[in-house]
Amino acid sequence: MALGALLVMGLGTAQADTLPDTAERVQQSVVGIATFKPTRSPRADYMGTGFVVGDGRLVVTNFHVIPESLDTERRERLVVISGHGRDTEIHHAEVVAQSVDHDLALLRISAPSLPALRLGSSDAVRIGEELAFTGYPIGMILGLYPATHRASVAARTPMVIPARSSSELDERRIRALRNNPPMVFQLDATAYPGNSGSPVYRKDSGAVVGVVNQVFVQGGREAAVSQPSGISYAIPSDRIRPLLDEYHANGN
Amino acid sequence: MALGALLVMGLGTAQADTLPDTAERVQQSVVGIATFKPTRSPRADYMGTGFVVGDGRLVVTNFHVIPESLDTERRERLVVISGHGRDTEIHHAEVVAQSVDHDLALLRISAPSLPALRLGSSDAVRIGEELAFTGYPIGMILGLYPATHRASVAARTPMVIPARSSSELDERRIRALRNNPPMVFQLDATAYPGNSGSPVYRKDSGAVVGVVNQVFVQGGREAAVSQPSGISYAIPSDRIRPLLDEYHANGN
Amino acid sequence: MALGALLVMGLGTAQADTLPDTAERVQQSVVGIATFKPTRSPRADYMGTGFVVGDGRLVVTNFHVIPESLDTERRERLVVISGHGRDTEIHHAEVVAQSVDHDLALLRISAPSLPALRLGSSDAVRIGEELAFTGYPIGMILGLYPATHRASVAARTPMVIPARSSSELDERRIRALRNNPPMVFQLDATAYPGNSGSPVYRKDSGAVVGVVNQVFVQGGREAAVSQPSGISYAIPSDRIRPLLDEYHANGN
Repeated sequence: MALGALLVMGLGTAQADTLPDTAERVQQSVVGIATFKPTRSPRADYMGTGFVVGDGRLVVTNFHVIPESLDTERRERLVVISGHGRDTEIHHAEVVAQSVDHDLALLRISAPSLPALRLGSSDAVRIGEELAFTGYPIGMILGLYPATHRASVAARTPMVIPARSSSELDERRIRALRNNPPMVFQLDATAYPGNSGSPVYRKDSGAVVGVVNQVFVQGGREAAVSQPSGISYAIPSDRIRPLLDEYHANGN
Repeated sequence: MALGALLVMGLGTAQADTLPDTAERVQQSVVGIATFKPTRSPRADYMGTGFVVGDGRLVVTNFHVIPESLDTERRERLVVISGHGRDTEIHHAEVVAQSVDHDLALLRISAPSLPALRLGSSDAVRIGEELAFTGYPIGMILGLYPATHRASVAARTPMVIPARSSSELDERRIRALRNNPPMVFQLDATAYPGNSGSPVYRKDSGAVVGVVNQVFVQGGREAAVSQPSGISYAIPSDRIRPLLDEYHANGN
Repeated sequence: MALGALLVMGLGTAQADTLPDTAERVQQSVVGIATFKPTRSPRADYMGTGFVVGDGRLVVTNFHVIPESLDTERRERLVVISGHGRDTEIHHAEVVAQSVDHDLALLRISAPSLPALRLGSSDAVRIGEELAFTGYPIGMILGLYPATHRASVAARTPMVIPARSSSELDERRIRALRNNPPMVFQLDATAYPGNSGSPVYRKDSGAVVGVVNQVFVQGGREAAVSQPSGISYAIPSDRIRPLLDEYHANGN
């Protein structure tokens, strides 16, 4: 009897491709990162993708997605856009922690809270595993339509420092990073400009194990996902925890 | 006993990748769409892909694949090419129904009838599902060699009207389509020029759920699959039924 | 009892994706092909990928990967580079057999022997099957990090003769090949310059069924994998056996 039940469960798992169910859930937690300026048309200028973590009011994205400065005189603000299709909602956001070295930023949005994704262990990811990522590869011209892609882990390789980060780092830090670069995932997948900040997750559990941040282009790698190619990179999700710790250490 | 049989069946399904068997069957129904001109060299000018449905003498392809006009004075004709390798057969074809809005055309070929594909429900397709498509991505330079690709469904997005269709539509119709565009499948797959009109089908049953018609290129989408990229689009197969109904309503 | 055991085995196979385990093993047998020149900086000039077969001292790669000539006066040599990351080893290598027609070369390296891959039957490969390949798509700028990609078999198509090979063949041989070209695998995968010579293998057993050698580029195919695209080609592994036979026939 117990064996029978186990087998039926096992078969269910084996036969069903779990990605459609997982993608449906994950989509609820994927947001657009944009700047909002009341005097501009269109008012929202889309920068990349992000995803909700923790208490539902924290959003992870890439450091290079965040604009260097805002036109505060004309009330330009950093915003997070949630929702689907033409039914979207705009949330004011502020950067509460960041890691220039690992191209990550943690934002806090105004209430209400959104459904959060769970962080998995990026250490446990193996070469050849098939993962998935969800984001806004080609912006939001006709509305917010998240796209879900499969991505096989091709390799663990040393990270190349994004240009946007280089300008924030002093000579010594750059040298240190070049001598001992953080390792990133090389993905067998085509990512597009808007995919920067997309969560890379397990197809069965939806646990986040990485954050899409770069794409390979002939002659080098690009910080932003500026030119599509068959090779993309992702920051391991274990690099997100220090940002959450920093945020909580600040009495939040 | 019954349980044992069920389990063995289940295991068979789970272990075997069903695409090789399905692709072998589907290939028999995939054809090339071309114009044929006795005075030209080569005489066949290849326009895209199509697939056989219904009674075996009906072929579905994209509206934009069909040439706007034929050089009838020099006996240029629309043809469908079936077969494999260098062993091919040419069938005269005529357009019997079309939908400019949904970039679809239904052709009728002269006898004999070819093996037909079954139309599935495109409504039941889920984001993240892995499908397949078969067609002639890079033409038929060395013979007719259909290529089968896997394609994960990345999103359902609003369709952009192909240029070829725009010229056929009046202002009011274009405005209506812009305000309420038909939804199409965004596929995580690289399609090439010749793939326009390729059937997108389920890996297990071979039931057709879409028709490849567009590819994303930087700066916009192109009606023809003119430049390869990692993002392709497909018309949901439910849009084919009205064309079949129209054809049958005409006393066929 | 026996039935229970069978079912549990079956379930294990079905649930687990075998590629991570297989890729870990295969990586040990994948090497870089380079020329080494003591007076040059960097001293190693990377040409492509290769893989170890037979007694552990034989390496298969593409014919077009091997340089036409070496600057022997300045002690330039053909080498094979094994290892991982910055922990690599250089082995002197010499060509012991080659097939210009099939774009294959067999090298022999100096001791010690490396772990060898098993050759599978390329005849048994089916259209639509998902295979994998491992190599060095974008060279070794930051060290030797093999990348593993999934590749679905899209088609069997006639091979186009690489330019490098054309220059080695006389008119009659080229005509013969054009009339009866060898069949190759068309893969649904993005390969990069460094992938030439990468082993294409089964995800479960790691048995080699092909060797990546070409990529499709708009307007033709290129011998070297010079521009990435979504279509790559591989030589069936059955073409490797004649080279091994030739080597052994020479008293080795």
